[in-house]
Amino acid sequence: MEKLNDWASHSGRQQLWKHASRETGTDMVFSIFLPPGEGPFPVVWYLSGLTCTPSNVTEKGEFRRVCAELGLAFLAPDTSPRGEAVADDPAYDLGQGAGFTVDATEAPWAANFRMRSYIEDELPEVAALHFPLDMARQGITGHSMGGHGALTVALRNPGRFRSVSAFSPIVAPSLVPWGQKAFAAYLGTDRSAWALHDAVALIDAGARLSDVMVDIGDADSFLETQLKPELLREACNRAGIPLTLRLQPGYDHSYYFVSTFMSDHLRWHAERLGAGRDPL
Amino acid sequence: MEKLNDWASHSGRQQLWKHASRETGTDMVFSIFLPPGEGPFPVVWYLSGLTCTPSNVTEKGEFRRVCAELGLAFLAPDTSPRGEAVADDPAYDLGQGAGFTVDATEAPWAANFRMRSYIEDELPEVAALHFPLDMARQGITGHSMGGHGALTVALRNPGRFRSVSAFSPIVAPSLVPWGQKAFAAYLGTDRSAWALHDAVALIDAGARLSDVMVDIGDADSFLETQLKPELLREACNRAGIPLTLRLQPGYDHSYYFVSTFMSDHLRWHAERLGAGRDPL
Repeated sequence: MEKLNDWASHSGRQQLWKHASRETGTDMVFSIFLPPGEGPFPVVWYLSGLTCTPSNVTEKGEFRRVCAELGLAFLAPDTSPRGEAVADDPAYDLGQGAGFTVDATEAPWAANFRMRSYIEDELPEVAALHFPLDMARQGITGHSMGGHGALTVALRNPGRFRSVSAFSPIVAPSLVPWGQKAFAAYLGTDRSAWALHDAVALIDAGARLSDVMVDIGDADSFLETQLKPELLREACNRAGIPLTLRLQPGYDHSYYFVSTFMSDHLRWHAERLGAGRDPL
Repeated sequence: MEKLNDWASHSGRQQLWKHASRETGTDMVFSIFLPPGEGPFPVVWYLSGLTCTPSNVTEKGEFRRVCAELGLAFLAPDTSPRGEAVADDPAYDLGQGAGFTVDATEAPWAANFRMRSYIEDELPEVAALHFPLDMARQGITGHSMGGHGALTVALRNPGRFRSVSAFSPIVAPSLVPWGQKAFAAYLGTDRSAWALHDAVALIDAGARLSDVMVDIGDADSFLETQLKPELLREACNRAGIPLTLRLQPGYDHSYYFVSTFMSDHLRWHAERLGAGRDPL
Protein backbone atom coordinates (compact mmCIF):
# COMPACT_ATOMS: atom_id res chain seq x y z
CA MET A 1 0.00 0.00 0.00
CA GLU A 2 1.35 3.37 -0.99
CA LYS A 3 -0.40 6.63 -0.19
CA LEU A 4 -0.07 8.73 -3.34
CA ASN A 5 -1.79 11.82 -1.98
CA ASP A 6 -3.55 13.04 1.12
CA TRP A 7 -5.42 16.33 1.00
CA ALA A 8 -7.36 18.17 3.67
CA SER A 9 -10.80 18.84 2.24
CA HIS A 10 -14.16 19.73 3.76
CA SER A 11 -12.81 19.01 7.27
CA GLY A 12 -11.83 15.45 6.32
CA ARG A 13 -9.06 13.77 4.35
CA GLN A 14 -9.19 12.93 0.64
CA GLN A 15 -6.61 10.23 -0.04
CA LEU A 16 -5.36 8.45 -3.13
CA TRP A 17 -3.80 4.99 -2.64
CA LYS A 18 -2.00 2.46 -4.81
CA HIS A 19 -1.66 -1.23 -3.99
CA ALA A 20 -0.51 -4.41 -5.72
CA SER A 21 -3.66 -6.39 -6.49
CA ARG A 22 -3.57 -10.17 -6.27
CA GLU A 23 -6.68 -10.35 -8.48
CA THR A 24 -5.65 -8.15 -11.39
CA GLY A 25 -1.91 -8.79 -11.11
CA THR A 26 -1.35 -5.05 -11.45
CA ASP A 27 -1.05 -2.01 -9.26
CA MET A 28 -4.51 -0.64 -8.60
CA VAL A 29 -5.32 2.92 -7.52
CA PHE A 30 -8.35 3.93 -5.47
CA SER A 31 -9.44 7.07 -3.67
CA ILE A 32 -11.04 7.28 -0.25
CA PHE A 33 -12.53 10.22 1.61
CA LEU A 34 -12.50 9.95 5.37
CA PRO A 35 -14.81 12.37 7.16
CA PRO A 36 -13.68 14.16 10.32
CA GLY A 37 -13.59 12.04 13.47
CA GLU A 38 -12.16 8.71 14.51
CA GLY A 39 -14.60 6.30 12.93
CA PRO A 40 -15.43 3.57 12.30
CA PHE A 41 -17.35 5.22 9.46
CA PRO A 42 -20.10 3.75 7.32
CA VAL A 43 -18.81 3.66 3.76
CA VAL A 44 -20.38 4.36 0.38
CA TRP A 45 -18.72 2.71 -2.61
CA TYR A 46 -18.77 4.62 -5.88
CA LEU A 47 -18.07 2.72 -9.11
CA SER A 48 -17.15 4.98 -12.02
CA GLY A 49 -18.14 4.91 -15.66
CA LEU A 50 -16.33 4.09 -18.89
CA THR A 51 -12.88 5.68 -19.33
CA CYS A 52 -12.78 6.93 -15.75
CA THR A 53 -10.07 6.56 -13.18
CA PRO A 54 -10.83 7.29 -9.50
CA SER A 55 -9.79 10.88 -10.20
CA ASN A 56 -12.92 11.80 -12.15
CA VAL A 57 -15.37 11.50 -9.27
CA THR A 58 -12.75 12.58 -6.75
CA GLU A 59 -12.27 15.88 -8.58
CA LYS A 60 -15.75 16.44 -9.98
CA GLY A 61 -18.19 14.49 -7.81
CA GLU A 62 -18.91 17.12 -5.14
CA PHE A 63 -19.38 14.43 -2.50
CA ARG A 64 -17.09 15.61 0.29
CA ARG A 65 -19.20 18.33 1.86
CA VAL A 66 -22.12 16.01 2.48
CA CYS A 67 -19.94 13.03 3.41
CA ALA A 68 -18.25 15.20 6.03
CA GLU A 69 -21.61 16.39 7.30
CA LEU A 70 -23.05 12.87 7.51
CA GLY A 71 -19.90 11.08 8.66
CA LEU A 72 -19.67 8.88 5.55
CA ALA A 73 -16.49 7.48 4.04
CA PHE A 74 -16.50 7.42 0.22
CA LEU A 75 -14.48 4.76 -1.60
CA ALA A 76 -13.86 5.05 -5.35
CA PRO A 77 -12.03 2.17 -7.09
CA ASP A 78 -10.61 2.25 -10.60
CA THR A 79 -12.66 0.84 -13.48
CA SER A 80 -10.13 -1.76 -14.71
CA PRO A 81 -6.55 -2.90 -14.46
CA ARG A 82 -4.14 -0.67 -16.36
CA GLY A 83 -0.58 -0.70 -17.67
CA GLU A 84 1.66 -1.48 -20.59
CA ALA A 85 1.47 -5.22 -19.92
CA VAL A 86 -2.34 -5.25 -19.69
CA ALA A 87 -4.49 -6.06 -22.70
CA ASP A 88 -6.28 -3.10 -24.22
CA ASP A 89 -8.37 -2.04 -27.16
CA PRO A 90 -8.38 1.28 -29.02
CA ALA A 91 -12.11 1.73 -28.37
CA TYR A 92 -13.13 3.65 -25.25
CA ASP A 93 -15.65 0.99 -24.28
CA LEU A 94 -13.41 -2.09 -24.18
CA GLY A 95 -10.23 -2.90 -22.30
CA GLN A 96 -8.53 -0.46 -19.96
CA GLY A 97 -11.11 1.85 -18.39
CA ALA A 98 -13.93 -0.55 -19.25
CA GLY A 99 -13.83 -3.38 -16.72
CA PHE A 100 -17.62 -3.83 -16.37
CA THR A 101 -17.08 -5.50 -12.94
CA VAL A 102 -16.64 -8.97 -14.47
CA ASP A 103 -13.98 -11.67 -14.14
CA ALA A 104 -13.04 -12.20 -17.77
CA THR A 105 -12.79 -15.78 -19.00
CA GLU A 106 -11.64 -15.06 -22.54
CA ALA A 107 -8.20 -14.28 -23.95
CA PRO A 108 -6.51 -11.82 -23.84
CA TRP A 109 -8.60 -10.38 -21.01
CA ALA A 110 -8.69 -13.22 -18.51
CA ALA A 111 -5.18 -12.62 -17.20
CA ASN A 112 -5.87 -9.23 -15.61
CA PHE A 113 -9.52 -8.28 -16.00
CA ARG A 114 -10.80 -9.65 -12.69
CA MET A 115 -12.77 -6.62 -11.57
CA ARG A 116 -15.60 -8.64 -10.03
CA SER A 117 -13.25 -10.39 -7.61
CA TYR A 118 -11.33 -7.17 -7.06
CA ILE A 119 -14.45 -5.20 -6.12
CA GLU A 120 -16.34 -7.94 -4.29
CA ASP A 121 -13.48 -9.67 -2.45
CA GLU A 122 -10.08 -8.03 -2.52
CA LEU A 123 -10.75 -4.33 -2.11
CA PRO A 124 -13.21 -4.84 0.79
CA GLU A 125 -10.48 -6.79 2.60
CA VAL A 126 -7.92 -4.07 1.91
CA ALA A 127 -10.31 -1.31 2.93
CA ALA A 128 -11.39 -3.02 6.16
CA LEU A 129 -7.76 -3.62 7.10
CA HIS A 130 -6.39 -0.16 6.43
CA PHE A 131 -9.16 2.31 7.20
CA PRO A 132 -11.54 2.97 10.09
CA LEU A 133 -14.63 1.64 8.28
CA ASP A 134 -17.72 -0.03 9.66
CA MET A 135 -18.09 -2.83 7.13
CA ALA A 136 -21.49 -3.72 8.58
CA ARG A 137 -22.70 -0.40 7.18
CA GLN A 138 -21.86 -0.31 3.47
CA GLY A 139 -23.74 1.35 0.65
CA ILE A 140 -22.95 1.27 -3.06
CA THR A 141 -23.60 3.54 -5.99
CA GLY A 142 -22.04 4.25 -9.37
CA HIS A 143 -22.37 6.01 -12.67
CA SER A 144 -23.19 4.50 -16.07
CA MET A 145 -21.00 1.37 -16.37
CA GLY A 146 -20.38 1.84 -12.65
CA GLY A 147 -24.12 2.07 -12.04
CA HIS A 148 -24.36 -1.34 -13.69
CA GLY A 149 -21.57 -2.42 -11.35
CA ALA A 150 -23.30 -1.06 -8.25
CA LEU A 151 -26.58 -2.79 -9.06
CA THR A 152 -25.05 -6.14 -10.00
CA VAL A 153 -22.55 -6.25 -7.13
CA ALA A 154 -25.37 -5.52 -4.68
CA LEU A 155 -27.72 -8.05 -6.28
CA ARG A 156 -25.05 -10.78 -6.20
CA ASN A 157 -24.16 -10.13 -2.56
CA PRO A 158 -27.43 -10.08 -0.61
CA GLY A 159 -27.16 -8.48 2.79
CA ARG A 160 -23.80 -6.84 2.18
CA PHE A 161 -25.08 -3.42 1.15
CA ARG A 162 -27.73 -1.69 3.21
CA SER A 163 -28.25 0.97 0.54
CA VAL A 164 -28.01 0.90 -3.24
CA SER A 165 -28.37 3.67 -5.80
CA ALA A 166 -27.14 4.54 -9.25
CA PHE A 167 -26.63 7.46 -11.61
CA SER A 168 -27.52 6.73 -15.25
CA PRO A 169 -26.87 2.99 -14.93
CA ILE A 170 -26.70 0.42 -17.70
CA VAL A 171 -29.48 -1.75 -16.28
CA ALA A 172 -29.59 -4.54 -18.86
CA PRO A 173 -26.15 -4.80 -20.50
CA SER A 174 -27.02 -8.05 -22.25
CA LEU A 175 -29.54 -6.12 -24.32
CA VAL A 176 -27.56 -3.01 -25.30
CA PRO A 177 -24.47 -2.36 -27.44
CA TRP A 178 -22.03 -1.42 -24.65
CA GLY A 179 -22.77 -4.55 -22.68
CA GLN A 180 -23.01 -6.90 -25.64
CA LYS A 181 -19.63 -5.81 -26.94
CA ALA A 182 -17.89 -6.05 -23.56
CA PHE A 183 -19.52 -9.30 -22.45
CA ALA A 184 -18.79 -11.02 -25.75
CA ALA A 185 -15.14 -10.03 -25.42
CA TYR A 186 -14.71 -10.76 -21.72
CA LEU A 187 -17.13 -13.66 -21.18
CA GLY A 188 -17.53 -15.20 -24.61
CA THR A 189 -20.55 -15.57 -26.78
CA ASP A 190 -22.38 -18.10 -24.60
CA ARG A 191 -24.96 -15.76 -23.12
CA SER A 192 -25.67 -17.97 -20.14
CA ALA A 193 -22.56 -16.46 -18.53
CA TRP A 194 -23.89 -12.95 -19.02
CA ALA A 195 -26.93 -13.17 -16.77
CA LEU A 196 -24.85 -12.95 -13.61
CA HIS A 197 -23.72 -9.50 -14.78
CA ASP A 198 -27.05 -8.03 -15.81
CA ALA A 199 -29.17 -6.30 -13.18
CA VAL A 200 -32.48 -6.99 -14.91
CA ALA A 201 -31.57 -10.65 -15.49
CA LEU A 202 -30.43 -11.02 -11.89
CA ILE A 203 -33.71 -9.60 -10.59
CA ASP A 204 -35.70 -11.84 -12.92
CA ALA A 205 -33.68 -14.79 -11.59
CA GLY A 206 -34.73 -13.95 -8.05
CA ALA A 207 -32.09 -11.57 -6.70
CA ARG A 208 -33.49 -8.83 -4.50
CA LEU A 209 -32.71 -5.39 -3.07
CA SER A 210 -34.65 -3.82 -0.21
CA ASP A 211 -34.98 -0.68 -2.32
CA VAL A 212 -33.01 1.31 -4.86
CA MET A 213 -32.79 4.89 -6.13
CA VAL A 214 -31.82 5.77 -9.71
CA ASP A 215 -31.37 9.20 -11.28
CA ILE A 216 -31.04 9.67 -15.05
CA GLY A 217 -31.03 12.87 -17.07
CA ASP A 218 -33.72 13.04 -19.71
CA ALA A 219 -31.20 14.75 -22.04
CA ASP A 220 -28.74 11.87 -21.61
CA SER A 221 -27.69 10.91 -25.12
CA PHE A 222 -27.35 7.26 -24.02
CA LEU A 223 -30.80 7.07 -22.47
CA GLU A 224 -32.60 5.13 -25.17
CA THR A 225 -29.76 3.15 -26.67
CA GLN A 226 -27.70 2.04 -23.67
CA LEU A 227 -29.48 2.80 -20.39
CA LYS A 228 -33.13 1.82 -20.92
CA PRO A 229 -34.35 2.55 -17.39
CA GLU A 230 -37.81 1.25 -18.26
CA LEU A 231 -36.35 -2.26 -18.23
CA LEU A 232 -35.30 -1.78 -14.61
CA ARG A 233 -38.67 -0.32 -13.72
CA GLU A 234 -40.46 -3.32 -15.20
CA ALA A 235 -38.13 -5.80 -13.50
CA CYS A 236 -38.54 -4.06 -10.13
CA ASN A 237 -42.30 -4.05 -10.62
CA ARG A 238 -42.29 -7.77 -11.36
CA ALA A 239 -40.11 -8.44 -8.34
CA GLY A 240 -41.76 -6.04 -5.91
CA ILE A 241 -38.54 -4.07 -5.40
CA PRO A 242 -39.28 -0.46 -4.42
CA LEU A 243 -37.59 1.68 -7.07
CA THR A 244 -37.25 5.46 -6.89
CA LEU A 245 -36.55 6.32 -10.53
CA ARG A 246 -36.13 10.00 -11.29
CA LEU A 247 -35.81 11.34 -14.83
CA GLN A 248 -34.09 14.69 -14.30
CA PRO A 249 -35.18 17.24 -16.90
CA GLY A 250 -32.43 18.77 -19.02
CA TYR A 251 -29.55 16.82 -17.51
CA ASP A 252 -27.05 14.83 -19.55
CA HIS A 253 -24.60 12.00 -18.79
CA SER A 254 -21.79 14.18 -17.42
CA TYR A 255 -20.44 14.95 -13.98
CA TYR A 256 -22.42 18.20 -14.14
CA PHE A 257 -25.38 15.86 -13.69
CA VAL A 258 -23.77 13.47 -11.19
CA SER A 259 -22.53 16.27 -8.94
CA THR A 260 -25.96 17.90 -8.92
CA PHE A 261 -27.69 14.85 -7.44
CA MET A 262 -24.77 13.46 -5.42
CA SER A 263 -26.05 14.97 -2.17
CA ASP A 264 -29.51 13.42 -2.68
CA HIS A 265 -27.89 10.02 -3.13
CA LEU A 266 -25.61 10.39 -0.12
CA ARG A 267 -28.58 11.36 2.06
CA TRP A 268 -30.46 8.32 0.75
CA HIS A 269 -27.52 6.12 1.73
CA ALA A 270 -27.05 7.83 5.10
CA GLU A 271 -30.67 7.19 6.06
CA ARG A 272 -30.29 3.48 5.38
CA LEU A 273 -26.84 3.29 6.96
CA GLY A 274 -27.93 5.09 10.11
CA ALA A 275 -25.38 7.81 9.40
CA GLY A 276 -25.65 11.48 10.23
CA ARG A 277 -27.62 10.89 13.39
CA ASP A 278 -26.39 11.37 16.90
CA PRO A 279 -25.96 7.99 18.59
CA LEU A 280 -28.73 7.26 21.10
CA MET B 1 -19.22 34.29 -29.74
CA GLU B 2 -19.43 30.54 -29.90
CA LYS B 3 -21.05 28.45 -27.20
CA LEU B 4 -18.78 25.43 -26.78
CA ASN B 5 -20.87 23.67 -24.16
CA ASP B 6 -24.03 24.13 -22.13
CA TRP B 7 -24.74 21.74 -19.29
CA ALA B 8 -27.66 21.57 -16.90
CA SER B 9 -26.18 21.58 -13.40
CA HIS B 10 -27.57 22.35 -9.96
CA SER B 11 -30.80 23.70 -11.51
CA GLY B 12 -28.88 26.27 -13.59
CA ARG B 13 -26.74 26.25 -16.73
CA GLN B 14 -22.98 25.84 -16.84
CA GLN B 15 -21.74 27.21 -20.14
CA LEU B 16 -18.37 27.41 -21.88
CA TRP B 17 -17.90 30.16 -24.47
CA LYS B 18 -15.23 31.15 -26.98
CA HIS B 19 -14.86 34.60 -28.51
CA ALA B 20 -12.35 36.51 -30.60
CA SER B 21 -10.70 38.99 -28.27
CA ARG B 22 -9.73 42.43 -29.57
CA GLU B 23 -7.29 42.83 -26.67
CA THR B 24 -5.33 39.60 -26.90
CA GLY B 25 -5.77 39.09 -30.65
CA THR B 26 -6.65 35.47 -29.96
CA ASP B 27 -9.71 33.38 -29.27
CA MET B 28 -10.44 33.45 -25.56
CA VAL B 29 -12.50 30.88 -23.65
CA PHE B 30 -14.46 31.60 -20.49
CA SER B 31 -17.04 29.74 -18.46
CA ILE B 32 -20.19 31.16 -16.93
CA PHE B 33 -22.72 29.62 -14.57
CA LEU B 34 -26.20 31.08 -14.73
CA PRO B 35 -28.44 30.23 -11.79
CA PRO B 36 -32.08 29.32 -12.33
CA GLY B 37 -34.39 32.21 -13.15
CA GLU B 38 -34.48 35.08 -15.59
CA GLY B 39 -32.00 37.47 -14.03
CA PRO B 40 -30.47 39.97 -14.13
CA PHE B 41 -28.12 38.16 -11.75
CA PRO B 42 -25.37 39.62 -9.61
CA VAL B 43 -22.10 38.14 -10.81
CA VAL B 44 -18.98 36.89 -9.06
CA TRP B 45 -15.80 36.88 -11.11
CA TYR B 46 -13.30 34.11 -10.41
CA LEU B 47 -9.71 34.53 -11.64
CA SER B 48 -7.77 31.27 -11.75
CA GLY B 49 -4.21 30.46 -10.78
CA LEU B 50 -1.08 29.56 -12.72
CA THR B 51 -1.48 26.91 -15.45
CA CYS B 52 -5.28 26.95 -15.18
CA THR B 53 -7.84 27.28 -17.90
CA PRO B 54 -11.47 28.06 -16.99
CA SER B 55 -12.02 24.31 -16.79
CA ASN B 56 -10.18 23.83 -13.51
CA VAL B 57 -12.56 25.80 -11.34
CA THR B 58 -15.54 24.85 -13.48
CA GLU B 59 -14.89 21.16 -12.83
CA LYS B 60 -13.40 21.28 -9.34
CA GLY B 61 -14.62 24.49 -7.71
CA GLU B 62 -17.91 23.25 -6.19
CA PHE B 63 -19.51 26.67 -6.67
CA ARG B 64 -22.72 25.79 -8.49
CA ARG B 65 -24.87 24.55 -5.61
CA VAL B 66 -24.43 27.74 -3.62
CA CYS B 67 -24.59 30.01 -6.68
CA ALA B 68 -27.92 28.42 -7.60
CA GLU B 69 -29.17 28.82 -4.05
CA LEU B 70 -28.13 32.47 -3.84
CA GLY B 71 -28.94 33.45 -7.42
CA LEU B 72 -25.35 34.33 -8.32
CA ALA B 73 -23.78 34.08 -11.76
CA PHE B 74 -20.16 32.90 -11.72
CA LEU B 75 -17.80 34.04 -14.47
CA ALA B 76 -14.39 32.37 -14.92
CA PRO B 77 -12.01 33.78 -17.56
CA ASP B 78 -8.86 32.13 -18.83
CA THR B 79 -5.50 33.08 -17.32
CA SER B 80 -3.77 34.20 -20.52
CA PRO B 81 -3.99 34.20 -24.31
CA ARG B 82 -3.13 30.82 -25.82
CA GLY B 83 -2.22 29.33 -29.18
CA GLU B 84 0.57 28.36 -31.51
CA ALA B 85 1.13 31.97 -32.56
CA VAL B 86 1.28 33.25 -28.98
CA ALA B 87 4.60 33.66 -27.15
CA ASP B 88 5.27 31.07 -24.49
CA ASP B 89 7.91 29.81 -22.12
CA PRO B 90 8.64 26.26 -21.02
CA ALA B 91 8.23 27.25 -17.35
CA TYR B 92 4.76 26.87 -15.81
CA ASP B 93 4.94 30.35 -14.30
CA LEU B 94 5.60 32.42 -17.42
CA GLY B 95 3.76 32.77 -20.72
CA GLN B 96 0.62 30.82 -21.55
CA GLY B 97 -1.34 30.09 -18.38
CA ALA B 98 0.50 32.83 -16.50
CA GLY B 99 -1.03 36.15 -17.54
CA PHE B 100 -0.84 37.86 -14.11
CA THR B 101 -3.60 40.30 -15.21
CA VAL B 102 -1.13 42.74 -16.73
CA ASP B 103 -0.84 44.42 -20.13
CA ALA B 104 2.67 43.41 -21.15
CA THR B 105 4.94 46.13 -22.53
CA GLU B 106 7.97 43.97 -23.34
CA ALA B 107 8.73 41.73 -26.33
CA PRO B 108 7.68 39.06 -27.11
CA TRP B 109 4.73 39.35 -24.71
CA ALA B 110 3.28 42.76 -25.58
CA ALA B 111 1.52 41.51 -28.72
CA ASN B 112 -0.98 39.24 -26.98
CA PHE B 113 -0.55 39.41 -23.22
CA ARG B 114 -3.14 42.10 -22.49
CA MET B 115 -4.96 40.40 -19.66
CA ARG B 116 -5.52 43.59 -17.67
CA SER B 117 -7.46 45.19 -20.51
CA TYR B 118 -9.19 41.93 -21.28
CA ILE B 119 -10.40 41.44 -17.68
CA GLU B 120 -11.08 45.07 -16.82
CA ASP B 121 -12.55 46.32 -20.11
CA GLU B 122 -13.32 43.78 -22.79
CA LEU B 123 -14.82 40.83 -20.96
CA PRO B 124 -17.15 43.00 -18.83
CA GLU B 125 -18.53 44.48 -22.07
CA VAL B 126 -18.96 41.03 -23.60
CA ALA B 127 -20.56 39.65 -20.45
CA ALA B 128 -22.96 42.56 -20.02
CA LEU B 129 -24.01 42.27 -23.66
CA HIS B 130 -24.61 38.53 -23.83
CA PHE B 131 -25.84 37.45 -20.41
CA PRO B 132 -28.55 38.56 -17.98
CA LEU B 133 -26.13 40.11 -15.48
CA ASP B 134 -26.63 43.03 -13.12
CA MET B 135 -23.31 44.81 -13.65
CA ALA B 136 -24.08 47.12 -10.74
CA ARG B 137 -23.69 44.10 -8.49
CA GLN B 138 -20.29 42.54 -9.21
CA GLY B 139 -17.96 40.72 -6.86
CA ILE B 140 -14.52 39.34 -7.58
CA THR B 141 -12.39 36.54 -6.19
CA GLY B 142 -9.58 34.32 -7.39
CA HIS B 143 -6.97 31.77 -6.46
CA SER B 144 -3.21 32.26 -6.14
CA MET B 145 -2.15 34.28 -9.22
CA GLY B 146 -5.89 34.87 -9.69
CA GLY B 147 -6.16 36.04 -6.09
CA HIS B 148 -3.52 38.61 -6.97
CA GLY B 149 -5.64 39.46 -9.99
CA ALA B 150 -8.83 39.82 -7.95
CA LEU B 151 -7.21 42.12 -5.40
CA THR B 152 -5.43 44.32 -7.92
CA VAL B 153 -8.35 44.58 -10.37
CA ALA B 154 -10.62 45.61 -7.48
CA LEU B 155 -8.10 48.09 -6.07
CA ARG B 156 -7.57 49.71 -9.49
CA ASN B 157 -11.29 50.04 -10.16
CA PRO B 158 -12.83 51.65 -7.10
CA GLY B 159 -16.59 51.26 -6.87
CA ARG B 160 -16.83 48.54 -9.49
CA PHE B 161 -16.81 45.55 -7.15
CA ARG B 162 -19.04 45.52 -4.10
CA SER B 163 -17.31 42.42 -2.72
CA VAL B 164 -13.73 41.19 -2.92
CA SER B 165 -12.16 38.00 -1.63
CA ALA B 166 -9.28 35.70 -2.48
CA PHE B 167 -8.01 32.17 -1.99
CA SER B 168 -4.26 31.90 -1.31
CA PRO B 169 -3.45 35.13 -3.17
CA ILE B 170 -0.06 36.46 -4.13
CA VAL B 171 -0.45 39.74 -2.23
CA ALA B 172 2.88 41.41 -3.00
CA PRO B 173 4.15 40.02 -6.31
CA SER B 174 6.92 42.64 -6.51
CA LEU B 175 8.52 41.03 -3.47
CA VAL B 176 8.28 37.30 -4.34
CA PRO B 177 9.82 35.06 -7.02
CA TRP B 178 6.64 34.36 -9.05
CA GLY B 179 5.84 38.04 -9.41
CA GLN B 180 9.39 39.25 -9.89
CA LYS B 181 9.96 36.80 -12.72
CA ALA B 182 6.68 37.56 -14.48
CA PHE B 183 6.80 41.33 -14.01
CA ALA B 184 10.41 41.56 -15.23
CA ALA B 185 9.41 39.64 -18.37
CA TYR B 186 6.10 41.37 -19.05
CA LEU B 187 6.72 44.89 -17.70
CA GLY B 188 10.51 45.25 -17.78
CA THR B 189 12.96 45.82 -15.01
CA ASP B 190 11.87 49.36 -14.14
CA ARG B 191 9.98 48.58 -10.97
CA SER B 192 7.92 51.75 -11.07
CA ALA B 193 5.63 49.94 -13.53
CA TRP B 194 5.12 47.07 -11.12
CA ALA B 195 3.36 48.97 -8.34
CA LEU B 196 0.10 49.13 -10.28
CA HIS B 197 0.03 45.33 -10.20
CA ASP B 198 0.86 44.72 -6.57
CA ALA B 199 -1.97 44.71 -4.03
CA VAL B 200 0.19 45.79 -1.12
CA ALA B 201 1.80 48.56 -3.17
CA LEU B 202 -1.61 49.74 -4.40
CA ILE B 203 -2.95 49.91 -0.84
CA ASP B 204 0.14 51.77 0.32
CA ALA B 205 -0.39 54.20 -2.56
CA GLY B 206 -3.90 54.95 -1.34
CA ALA B 207 -6.17 52.43 -3.08
CA ARG B 208 -8.96 51.15 -0.88
CA LEU B 209 -11.48 48.31 -0.52
CA SER B 210 -14.49 48.47 1.78
CA ASP B 211 -13.44 45.07 3.14
CA VAL B 212 -11.85 41.85 1.96
CA MET B 213 -11.80 38.17 2.94
CA VAL B 214 -8.79 35.91 2.36
CA ASP B 215 -8.42 32.19 3.07
CA ILE B 216 -5.03 30.46 2.97
CA GLY B 217 -4.14 26.93 4.01
CA ASP B 218 -1.45 26.75 6.66
CA ALA B 219 -0.01 23.68 4.86
CA ASP B 220 0.23 25.62 1.59
CA SER B 221 3.76 24.99 0.32
CA PHE B 222 3.83 28.49 -1.19
CA LEU B 223 2.75 30.26 2.00
CA GLU B 224 6.09 31.66 3.10
CA THR B 225 7.87 32.04 -0.23
CA GLN B 226 5.18 33.38 -2.57
CA LEU B 227 2.01 34.32 -0.69
CA LYS B 228 3.16 36.15 2.45
CA PRO B 229 -0.28 37.05 3.79
CA GLU B 230 1.28 39.01 6.66
CA LEU B 231 2.21 41.70 4.13
CA LEU B 232 -1.46 42.12 3.25
CA ARG B 233 -2.43 42.17 6.92
CA GLU B 234 0.09 44.91 7.63
CA ALA B 235 -0.97 46.94 4.60
CA CYS B 236 -4.66 46.63 5.51
CA ASN B 237 -3.85 47.63 9.08
CA ARG B 238 -1.98 50.71 7.87
CA ALA B 239 -4.85 51.62 5.54
CA GLY B 240 -7.73 50.79 7.87
CA ILE B 241 -9.15 48.19 5.44
CA PRO B 242 -11.13 45.53 7.31
CA LEU B 243 -9.45 42.22 6.44
CA THR B 244 -10.84 38.82 7.36
CA LEU B 245 -7.75 36.63 7.02
CA ARG B 246 -8.21 32.97 7.84
CA LEU B 247 -5.33 30.52 8.01
CA GLN B 248 -7.03 27.17 7.48
CA PRO B 249 -5.28 24.39 9.37
CA GLY B 250 -4.01 21.47 7.29
CA TYR B 251 -5.11 22.79 3.91
CA ASP B 252 -2.79 23.13 0.93
CA HIS B 253 -2.85 25.13 -2.32
CA SER B 254 -5.11 22.76 -4.29
CA TYR B 255 -8.73 22.77 -5.35
CA TYR B 256 -9.40 20.44 -2.41
CA PHE B 257 -8.81 23.60 -0.39
CA VAL B 258 -10.58 26.05 -2.72
CA SER B 259 -13.70 23.90 -3.00
CA THR B 260 -13.90 23.53 0.78
CA PHE B 261 -14.18 27.26 1.38
CA MET B 262 -15.93 28.27 -1.85
CA SER B 263 -19.35 28.37 -0.20
CA ASP B 264 -18.07 30.66 2.57
CA HIS B 265 -16.72 33.04 -0.07
CA LEU B 266 -19.89 32.98 -2.13
CA ARG B 267 -21.97 33.76 0.95
CA TRP B 268 -19.60 36.62 1.76
CA HIS B 269 -20.12 38.00 -1.74
CA ALA B 270 -23.88 37.42 -1.68
CA GLU B 271 -24.24 39.43 1.53
CA ARG B 272 -22.47 42.40 -0.03
CA LEU B 273 -24.24 42.03 -3.38
CA GLY B 274 -27.68 41.80 -1.81
CA ALA B 275 -28.10 38.33 -3.32
CA GLY B 276 -30.02 35.42 -1.90
CA ARG B 277 -32.64 37.60 -0.25
CA ASP B 278 -36.21 37.96 -1.30
CA PRO B 279 -36.76 41.42 -2.80
CA LEU B 280 -38.61 43.73 -0.44
